[in-house]
Formats: sequence, structure tokens, C-alpha cells
Amino acid sequence: MKVIIVGGVAAGMSAATRLRRLDEQAEIIVVEAGAHVSYANCGLPYFAGGIIADRDALLLQTPESLHARFRLDVRTHQRVTSIDTTSKQVTITGANGDTYTESFDSLILSPGASPVVPPVPGIDRALTLRDVSDVDALVASMVNAQSAVIIGAGFVGLEVAENLAHRGIDVTVVELAPQVLAPLDQEMAIRVQDRLTDHGIRVFTSAQVTAVASASVTVTTTDGDFEVPADVLVAAIGVRPETGLARDAGLELSPMGGILVDDHLRTSAPGVYAVGDAASKRDALGIGDATTLIPLANLANRHGRHVADVIAGNAAPMRASIGTAVVGIFGLTAATTGRNERRLIAEGRNFEVIHAHPAQHAGYYPGATPLAMKLLVDSDTDLILGAQAVGEDGVDKRIDVIATAIMGGIRASELMDLELAYAPAYGSAKDPINMLGYIADNRRTGATPSMQWHQLEAAMTDSPGDAILVDVRTAAEYAAGSVEIRGLASVNIPLDSLRDRASELPAGAKVIVHCQVGQRGHTAARLLRSLGHDAVNLDGGYLTLRDGMRSRNVLATV
Amino acid sequence: MKVIIVGGVAAGMSAATRLRRLDEQAEIIVVEAGAHVSYANCGLPYFAGGIIADRDALLLQTPESLHARFRLDVRTHQRVTSIDTTSKQVTITGANGDTYTESFDSLILSPGASPVVPPVPGIDRALTLRDVSDVDALVASMVNAQSAVIIGAGFVGLEVAENLAHRGIDVTVVELAPQVLAPLDQEMAIRVQDRLTDHGIRVFTSAQVTAVASASVTVTTTDGDFEVPADVLVAAIGVRPETGLARDAGLELSPMGGILVDDHLRTSAPGVYAVGDAASKRDALGIGDATTLIPLANLANRHGRHVADVIAGNAAPMRASIGTAVVGIFGLTAATTGRNERRLIAEGRNFEVIHAHPAQHAGYYPGATPLAMKLLVDSDTDLILGAQAVGEDGVDKRIDVIATAIMGGIRASELMDLELAYAPAYGSAKDPINMLGYIADNRRTGATPSMQWHQLEAAMTDSPGDAILVDVRTAAEYAAGSVEIRGLASVNIPLDSLRDRASELPAGAKVIVHCQVGQRGHTAARLLRSLGHDAVNLDGGYLTLRDGMRSRNVLATV
Repeated sequence: MKVIIVGGVAAGMSAATRLRRLDEQAEIIVVEAGAHVSYANCGLPYFAGGIIADRDALLLQTPESLHARFRLDVRTHQRVTSIDTTSKQVTITGANGDTYTESFDSLILSPGASPVVPPVPGIDRALTLRDVSDVDALVASMVNAQSAVIIGAGFVGLEVAENLAHRGIDVTVVELAPQVLAPLDQEMAIRVQDRLTDHGIRVFTSAQVTAVASASVTVTTTDGDFEVPADVLVAAIGVRPETGLARDAGLELSPMGGILVDDHLRTSAPGVYAVGDAASKRDALGIGDATTLIPLANLANRHGRHVADVIAGNAAPMRASIGTAVVGIFGLTAATTGRNERRLIAEGRNFEVIHAHPAQHAGYYPGATPLAMKLLVDSDTDLILGAQAVGEDGVDKRIDVIATAIMGGIRASELMDLELAYAPAYGSAKDPINMLGYIADNRRTGATPSMQWHQLEAAMTDSPGDAILVDVRTAAEYAAGSVEIRGLASVNIPLDSLRDRASELPAGAKVIVHCQVGQRGHTAARLLRSLGHDAVNLDGGYLTLRDGMRSRNVLATV
Repeated sequence: MKVIIVGGVAAGMSAATRLRRLDEQAEIIVVEAGAHVSYANCGLPYFAGGIIADRDALLLQTPESLHARFRLDVRTHQRVTSIDTTSKQVTITGANGDTYTESFDSLILSPGASPVVPPVPGIDRALTLRDVSDVDALVASMVNAQSAVIIGAGFVGLEVAENLAHRGIDVTVVELAPQVLAPLDQEMAIRVQDRLTDHGIRVFTSAQVTAVASASVTVTTTDGDFEVPADVLVAAIGVRPETGLARDAGLELSPMGGILVDDHLRTSAPGVYAVGDAASKRDALGIGDATTLIPLANLANRHGRHVADVIAGNAAPMRASIGTAVVGIFGLTAATTGRNERRLIAEGRNFEVIHAHPAQHAGYYPGATPLAMKLLVDSDTDLILGAQAVGEDGVDKRIDVIATAIMGGIRASELMDLELAYAPAYGSAKDPINMLGYIADNRRTGATPSMQWHQLEAAMTDSPGDAILVDVRTAAEYAAGSVEIRGLASVNIPLDSLRDRASELPAGAKVIVHCQVGQRGHTAARLLRSLGHDAVNLDGGYLTLRDGMRSRNVLATV
């Protein structure tokens, strides 16, 4: 058996080494266009920032080490330029420019995805960050640089921004969308944006770079144009699957533009497989048989191993993907799994939103800090559609648990039953995950109807007097900052006096209660409803409302 | 509706407050024998150690605050002394010694569990740690104390040991079992024991306190008796469910001695429920309809809330329990979920054992440290039966993910498909959890047969010459420490030269390969098997063997 693998990084090299372990006799050729294989691409920003000091640490394997251990025939600086799917041959341009052909029994395409660069005059001086050569160029460009502009506030853009700031460079981030970190929803992402600005990074959202000069760029925003110094310019607006080779060979592409594969990672051509960032993924959270693109290293590695099992003849169908990711920015962690609210709205889905702000561990143990959490739940099935979390500590743990719950078919309200490891330094007897389950259960059973932060303004202003906003926090909390929307202020009735003072509330009015995070609000709403009031709880309380309003820059005082 | 709750801590108070939120009109009486309700019992050791500086932080609620918010009638220093299940009445001894009765519609028993004290002359001076009064007594006893003996090396015993050491006290731990932390298996627990001794705590295992003097105790071990200074003496050998009241009332008990409840937390008497440490739990990992006891705060809180739902008439059956726990000892974290190997052996189960030592995050990112992980898998179904992990960082996250996988019915080999949040500071593209899945998959499909550390000695010595142990680590690793069992030494053939040197291995011999952690050993075993050798991989490699041998103190040099 002769197998050719196009691309020798995460997916390709996982496929190659797994295949060797399954088949000592197979001839395995890995063709890699770049200078390096199996490098730590997720570590590149941290090498630029000096967090990873040793460049060799990025180079996990070499062609020599892979030959010694796995008898792989690794050919760097070579490029597959065409595929003949009928005769099962590829044409390769060698390192010296010569062209030759190789036949194959199986061909694995794992060419990855290439950074997208916005079409702006002068943009060619923008650097991108895909491989070790790129980071060498970035490091070289940073010598004596005092300023940098990063185009794009996604995961990679923000990692690069932090790392350049860590080198003492004055960094500006320019993002086309109205928020940073598009995988998060706006009221979550605002916390990341705050963290960036707290550390001296200038952030422009709803903005684009419209001109590039030699040491600066022009940033165009709704407030006008700004000239921003940019000794270094990095484009990190996203990646595009490398499908040229596949398209030229007549392989079918997915609706989103990846190389279309089935559940056994087979393309439309017999014997040709695709994995990694360039290949479509079956969408576990879609309607029907949808495919998606998820350019993440964990899926690339997983699918790389799986395609070897497929070729060796012993693989079950590949499980559909949900997409889970995390980023650390100046000590803050933001993580996400599955769908966000924006996308669910775009898809017209029927879903519930839950916000919570539990501490990552017992409040009485030193070091407790709040998490901002968001859970998205299918209204019809109670299945979990997605989650987001932002905080100082314990964020990745909670998102990993929810990702596992999604894949195990655990429903949102069943999160209350999860038995998670508890000691005061690690969690709470009612873990934040359990709390999300409790809230989902109260929502599902109708015990506490709720309102989202972005619904409050309309509820308060559409028919003034019909709705009243009751802040059930203490008088001290209220005095420290309370809600006023278009001149309509909340009334402060602390929870512990609500039972006695409920009669002050106008009969027949909709009573919207809120507390700091939603928990006392739940108790208040339950109490008022049992006393006959039409009470709803503001989901996530004051904190989610404040974050949401700030993310929207609406004219409200929170 | 009138509800009486016996015990006002985790389970009882969760039941009381949830019941109020569900039913504003119910009369809810909480009878608590102690001075405090709803205190942070898991925080008690940390208050003793001064980590939690403020005693008030332990007192989460008071009778007054619970009345203000939830209109609970909380009666501390009062004790229910009998239950008449026919007339639905309890007899209560009040704070002043008077006796009175209260009728109930529903009665919730959440009396908890009481510390067991070993029957040794003079033991009455031993302190235990159950409530705030106990920790006050412990703190008082520590004034001017220079030495302490802790009887019992379970979770609480070790937390107390660390905290007393943190106060500068010379601490000795005495454990009847041959290891510390019985919920772990011995080769995992040895790491915790090492950490204790590294921090100056003396640990006696297979030992007991046989006499108690005023400032010392006698510790009897297989090596003889030792006089150990003990200005402070703490008994933490475990807890016993408080079932006296239930037993006197004729309620049925479970085989393990808890108050027997069904899936709706109902005891054998109509209208009487039990939750928390005193109540039986349905065992999710048992054979058939087994019950168990799991005295953990997370289940107490969960079942407390659930029993309120049951009484309010809207509860599904309570999910069966698996038991998940964590402890931090001098910076080391040890966590466990589900069954351990010892218990599976005792139950005669058919299971696979997997050990792995992956780093908690990408090795090229600063701060990577290894985890010691263990997974127990049902051989017939591939379902996960339990897991353990010990390490500096990322331990609780992995155990929480596995606990969630167990509850979601995710099989061991399916762990490879979990999409966990990856960035270099948080995990690896192949997360430790995914690695466990890969190993399980290789085991399940027969790709790599394996051998456990405790099987090696017999395999090597039963028929000398029939088995050969090949160490596939580098020559430098081999030189730094290699395996020799009863005079039989391993042969060093580094993995990268194994293909060329495989012919050196005697034909027909069983080849046991090992590396440092099991990963290179897997590649080596695959290679040798494809070359026709009967090769097996030593599960967990050198590290697990070393830990196992040390935990057993066998006469072997590792």
C-alpha cells in the first residue's frame, strides 16, 4: 500500500504516524510545501512574545526523526501541484523546481488553511502567522519596532496582540465586527475587550484598515479616520481552507468552501481523503445533515488519526463536530463550545439563554473570583447548543465539562446532576455547572420566567407604567450603581424585605426583578409569583445587563 | 403543608430553601442539634490552618437570615428524639431541655454522619471535625501545641494534617490501611504520601494508634511500636451515617447501614424522606440495583434540592450516583470519580486498567507538568467505571470531564472524540483525556496488548527466559534508572533503533516493552507485533511501575 499525504503538520502527521503504527509495510510519503513539519503552530504567538523562549521547542519533529521512528518519507519544500484521480497519481514540484509524479493507493489531503489578507493598497507589508517561517519574519520585524497594528480580533489576532504588548510594543487592534472575539456573544466579548484596553492595547471595533503607509495605517471607523502608527502590521482576520488543489482535481467542495468529506473522511474521488482545516466537518449542532468548517488543532489531530484508521480498514464513522476553543488574554480566559446566540438567531432556532456569574470555587476560600457564563439551550429538547465562559480561573474546566455534556447528550437541566470534584479550592458543593442546570430546570419547568438583557429596554419603554423594574439587591448595592433606562429608574426593594413590601407593587403590572447576578432575582420572582404578581427575572442580573449595554453602547446609564 | 427537616446543614438547608421557593405557604421547620446551620463544613480544616482567616466566612447563613429571606423556622440546639411514623409526629427536645411534639405532613431526615473514633483507651481526648464548634475546639487545642497526630489518612485527615503543618505543628498521620487516601489505588496514592513526607509530615501506614497518653500516643506497626508526640490528637478515620433516630422509628436501613431511600428519596415510612450523608444512594456503577453510601457535599446539596421537588410533586427519579472527589495537599491535587481498581477486584468485575502520564498542557509552553492518570474500563461494554488523577495542575478538570463522560454514557474509547478547549496554556491538541481514549481504543481493538505493573514480576520470573523486558527509552534515560526485578534486568533498545535491532530478540519469547510513560512502548509493541513478535506494552511505563513497586515495598530495584 502506498499512501501520499499532502501537508505535514497536525492532521497530516497524525495520519502518517498512526498509519505506520497500523501498517509497518505501507509506503508513506508526506509532501510538505513549507520548511518544517509537525511544528507547534498554536505556539507561534508565544514565541513571538518571548513566553516560549526556545525556537527549537516549536519544532516537535523533523523529517529525520520521523524517518528514524516511523520510516516516513517526508519531503519538505515540495508541493503537490495536481492530482489525477483517475490514474491515482499526483504531480509534485520538488525542492529544486523539478517536477515528477508519484502514484498512490490512498491520498490524504491535509493542506490546511491560509490566512486571509484584506484587499487594501499597501497590504503586502502585512505579516501573517501560519508557520515557523512566518514567526521568524514577525520576530525580525519587531526589532526596534515601537508600534504594531493587528488586523482582526479573533483568537490568533488577540494572542498576537498580547504577545507584542508583552515585548513592549504599542499595539492597536482593528476589527471589522462590532466586537472582539466573534465566537463569543457581545456581552461576553466586552470583558475581553476591557482586559485588552486595561493593558494599554487600543481596540477599534466596527473598523477597518483602509490604507497602509510605511510606518502607519489609516483606520476608518464610524467616528472618522484615524492615523495609527504601525511599525509592524499583522493580518489575522481569519483563514481560508486551501482548496485549490482539490478544486482543480474536480473534488466536490462543501457549501462553506471546504473539501467535502463524508463520515469516513472520503472526498468525492475514490481513494482520496481530506482532513484538517481544509476539510468540511459534519456539524453536530446543525439542522439535518449540515457541514461546517472548524479550523482547530484538536479536530485536525483527531481526524488525522481517524483517516489512518479508515485507510487501514477499521474505522467507525467519524463523530460530528461541535467546536470548542479557548484563549488566554492578560490572565483572563475566554472559552466557548458549540453555537453562540448570534448564530442561533441567524439560523432561526428556538432557544433559551442562561447567564450566570458564579465564583469558580467556594466563596469563603481565598481567591474566589466570578465567572461570567452563558448557556444556550434548545427550547424544545432541552439539549445544550452552546456555552461561553470568561473569567480569571476555572473557565476551561467548565467549558470542557459542557462540551463533554453536549457530546454525551446530557440535557441542560441534567447539568444539575453532574457529580463534579468539590473541595473549597476547586469548586463549590453546587458547582457553577450545577447552577446552570438548576437555572435550566427552573426555566424549563416554568418556575421562573426570565427576560434577557436586550429585551429590557423595550419592556420598560414600550408601554410606560405597565412594567416596573425592581432591584432586589441591598440598599448599599443599589447606591453603588443602579439601572436607569431612558429616564425610567428601577425601584429598590431588597429581597429580605420583599415579602413585607410586595403590596407596594401596583397590581396588574409586569414586575421585572433583578439582582446582581440572577440568583436572588430568582428567589424574588418565585416569591412574587406565588403572591400573584406577574414577575419575571432579569437573566444574569445587573452584571449581564451592564455588560450587554456597554457592548451595545446604547444611551442608558447602568 | 407542614414540613419538618432534621438537620440544617447542606442537604437539609438545600431542601428547606428550595421548598420555600416552590411553596410560599408551606410551614417549614428546621431542627438542628448543633449551634449553627448552613455552615461551610468543607472549609473547617482551612480555618484551622489559617488559610480561611475569618471565622464568620464559615457561617453562610443564620436562623435570622433564613427567616428574613425564606421564612424558615430554624431551631438550633434542638434535637428530634423520636418519630411516630403512624401519627406523623416527632418529639423534640428543646434548647432548654423541655420536650414537645410537632406534627408533620412531610419529614426530611438529613442528620448527616458522625466521625468514627477508634476504640482505644484514652481516645476521648481525640478531637473530631464535623462542625464549627469542633473547629473552635481544635483551634483552641493548637495554642502552644508543638505536635499533632492525625488518625486516618482520608480526605479530611490529610486536609487537617496539611493545615496543622501550615501552623508550624509537627504532624504525624497514622493510617490503618497500607496506603493513604483509600479512594485512590496504591500506585496513585503513593504520590500523595510522598508529597506529605516531602513537607515534613510523618506517615505511618498499616499502622494504628493503640494507646493514648496525655501528650503522646503509641503507634503500632509491623515494625514495632513507636511513641509519637501528640499535643493535639485528631480522629479522622471516617464517618458513620446517623441512623439512630431512623432505626428507632422502624425505618428500613440499607445493606451498608444508611437510611434506605428509593429513587424519590422516600424511606420505608410514608411521608418520611432522607437525604445527605445518612441516606443510601443508588449506585450508578453497581451490578443490578445496588445502593451505596457517599458522604459528599455535592450529593447532599443535590439531593436536598431534589427532595423538595419530590415533596412539591414535580420530580423525576433521582439519578444514581458515581461519587467524585478531590483534595489538595501541599500543591498536589488528587481526584477520583467512580470505582477504583481495588473495589472492582473485590466485586469480581471484568475490567481494563489504563495508566498515562501526559502533561497538563502543551509541553512546549512554560509550566508543563505531568499528570498521573488512571482509567478503569468495563472490558465487555467499554463503559468507564472510574478514573483517578494526581498532579500539580489540571487534575480536577480531567476528573470532572471523565465524571461527565460517565454520566453521559460516553465510552472509554470515545474519549478520543471529545472536543476540549485547547490553547498551549490550557491543554494539548491531543488532550490527556483524548490520549486516554486513544489508549482505550488500542486496547479494545487489540492493537496493543498490555501488561499491568503488578503482573510484571510474575511474567519475568515464572519461567525465566520465556519473557524478555525491553526498555525502549534512550540510552540516557536507561542509564538514569532502569528496571531490575529479582536479578532480571531489562535490555535497552531505544525505540528509534528497534526496527533495525529487532532481530536481536529471541524468536518465540514474549517481549514486554516499556518506555517512560507507555507511549513509545505502544509504538514499539505495534512495530514488534507487525514483525511477528509476541509483544506487549507495560501500561504506564517506567513511572507507573516505579510508583507501583514503591507502593508495595517489594524487593525490586526500580
